[in-house]
Amino acid sequence: MLKVAVLGAGYMGSAVTFPLAHNGIATSLWGTWLDDELIDGALAGCHPKLRKPLPDGVKLFRTGELKEAVRGADAVFIAVTSDGFEPVFRKLLDATDGKPCLLAMTKGFVQHGGMVQPISTVAEELFRKRFRGAPFLWASVGGPVKAVELAEGIPTATIFGVKSPRLKPLVVNFATGYYRIFFTDDVRGVELCSALKNVYAIATGISDGMYEGCGAYYHNFKALLFNQSLREIAAVVQAAGGREDTVFDLPGAGDLYVTSASGRNGMFGRRIGRGEVPSRAYGAMLREGDIAEGYHALRLGKTFIEQLGGDLLEKLHLFNTLYSIIFQGNDCRREMEQFVLRYGSGD
Amino acid sequence: MLKVAVLGAGYMGSAVTFPLAHNGIATSLWGTWLDDELIDGALAGCHPKLRKPLPDGVKLFRTGELKEAVRGADAVFIAVTSDGFEPVFRKLLDATDGKPCLLAMTKGFVQHGGMVQPISTVAEELFRKRFRGAPFLWASVGGPVKAVELAEGIPTATIFGVKSPRLKPLVVNFATGYYRIFFTDDVRGVELCSALKNVYAIATGISDGMYEGCGAYYHNFKALLFNQSLREIAAVVQAAGGREDTVFDLPGAGDLYVTSASGRNGMFGRRIGRGEVPSRAYGAMLREGDIAEGYHALRLGKTFIEQLGGDLLEKLHLFNTLYSIIFQGNDCRREMEQFVLRYGSGD
Repeated sequence: MLKVAVLGAGYMGSAVTFPLAHNGIATSLWGTWLDDELIDGALAGCHPKLRKPLPDGVKLFRTGELKEAVRGADAVFIAVTSDGFEPVFRKLLDATDGKPCLLAMTKGFVQHGGMVQPISTVAEELFRKRFRGAPFLWASVGGPVKAVELAEGIPTATIFGVKSPRLKPLVVNFATGYYRIFFTDDVRGVELCSALKNVYAIATGISDGMYEGCGAYYHNFKALLFNQSLREIAAVVQAAGGREDTVFDLPGAGDLYVTSASGRNGMFGRRIGRGEVPSRAYGAMLREGDIAEGYHALRLGKTFIEQLGGDLLEKLHLFNTLYSIIFQGNDCRREMEQFVLRYGSGD
Repeated sequence: MLKVAVLGAGYMGSAVTFPLAHNGIATSLWGTWLDDELIDGALAGCHPKLRKPLPDGVKLFRTGELKEAVRGADAVFIAVTSDGFEPVFRKLLDATDGKPCLLAMTKGFVQHGGMVQPISTVAEELFRKRFRGAPFLWASVGGPVKAVELAEGIPTATIFGVKSPRLKPLVVNFATGYYRIFFTDDVRGVELCSALKNVYAIATGISDGMYEGCGAYYHNFKALLFNQSLREIAAVVQAAGGREDTVFDLPGAGDLYVTSASGRNGMFGRRIGRGEVPSRAYGAMLREGDIAEGYHALRLGKTFIEQLGGDLLEKLHLFNTLYSIIFQGNDCRREMEQFVLRYGSGD
């Protein structure tokens, strides 16, 4: 019998227990030091984020019980926030023998060793220091997956970026009729798409905030932003060693489509588009337990792109527009208008 | 002073008069034999589709006045339905000296010479027969443009597929602060994207019809369909001599994004997803003056793809699913479930 542990009892970690349990996999769900309320709720019969009971048989573990949660696991999903990734990953390395496959649902960049790095890079470095010579069996998980919908059994496609083909025979066991699994070997492409789509979903959110309630539709504007987002994500992914075709598939186009349609990053953008000061909007959401990951990915992503060198950053008109609005205090409407004018008509 | 004539007084033809008039271009709008009511409404001060007055100075012409409408025009936009394309284009050839640039907003396939062909192919053949040796100055116009939004001045990006660079200096005169114009030389890619996105918007519409009102969100499913649509459009465009990068830019991803968000093809799909018989849904919409262009593009597109040869058609799982539902009377829910199961988990 397969055994899988899931780290992080928020939306995504809890949601992935549904297809796992559906397949009869022995499933553990471990809550971080921030997840006590979520574990309490789940134990009481209703997960507070998903607003439903977790599947029968899913074993719940509190923060002090990591070792028990991962004991004998064939694979470990890591589904914590990007902020929490490094501390949780270090604990995980201490709690295992290095044998389980590592499946990262956490998206984003981390600051590590004086640099901003993608999560898989940091994970590999930490893993290799701890378990010299052992195979690093890693997947970056991406694609258009809203957790609540996955938990409801809505047809969903996900894509696992894996370097080692050894993961595939394991991962296919997680698929169900509603959880469809694809593979790619472009790990870098998957994880950068997952991180950057949170940034660009802020842009479509801003258009919602600017135009909703005005009595006019603005699909053209949203599509313009969506399209420019794909162009810019493709430029970053390629510069970082990923592939363009990854961006134009489930990890990029698919996930950006979902993330633009609903979610916390779009909500963050909407508040900005309505005129809220970005840092206050971020703080207000945080106090309600909603982290707009794109806020951090924008800040760290800028450094990551600068590290890549060349003139890449200056070509990313929409990225720079977002940075200017969110971290430099510039007026949202004026910046968005300037963006539109810099765009098209001869390019 | 530039002069531009627009053929077809429906949504798109009427909407493009806004940026033209904004630029001080002498603009004529000609209504086909089906457009009398639209011209009447516009003359009375409110265009019945756009629900607002046309810009000051736009000259309106009825079906018998085509020669007057196009006299001295530097460019002619053709914005009729795909059904109406060939008869209108033949009339246009009789009414001009072959000198105006031809800018096609009409999307889709036409039956011509025992084959199903893209509009630009048929247009070029008819043009060359009529004006031997004259330059065929053609653009296929695409990208995410909802007519009502363009008429409202919502920021909009469009892309002109042009073979001859001679068109660019003319076309850039149509741009405004809200109507941003891009160019590509992949005419075939633009026109196939424009036609096929109407087909695939039916699929996302079907997901709306299946799930809306169920109390659950289904963004994951819509994104899965959106993503598969892009994959399939890319396969057809490449087989037909267009380029993949066109599909992943404004003509494909951008336009499919808009078309999936609202419009007549989505509405057609929604009715099917709710359980209506497709041919009846199409007829009911037609009686209200709403043509779901994707219905015809699906039927003609199938023949077009068959003409391309090879095993392309059988790889287009979503296209075949739509054909099966719409033209072969198969059950919508069962076919969509089968599509999801054929999809992913190892591919």
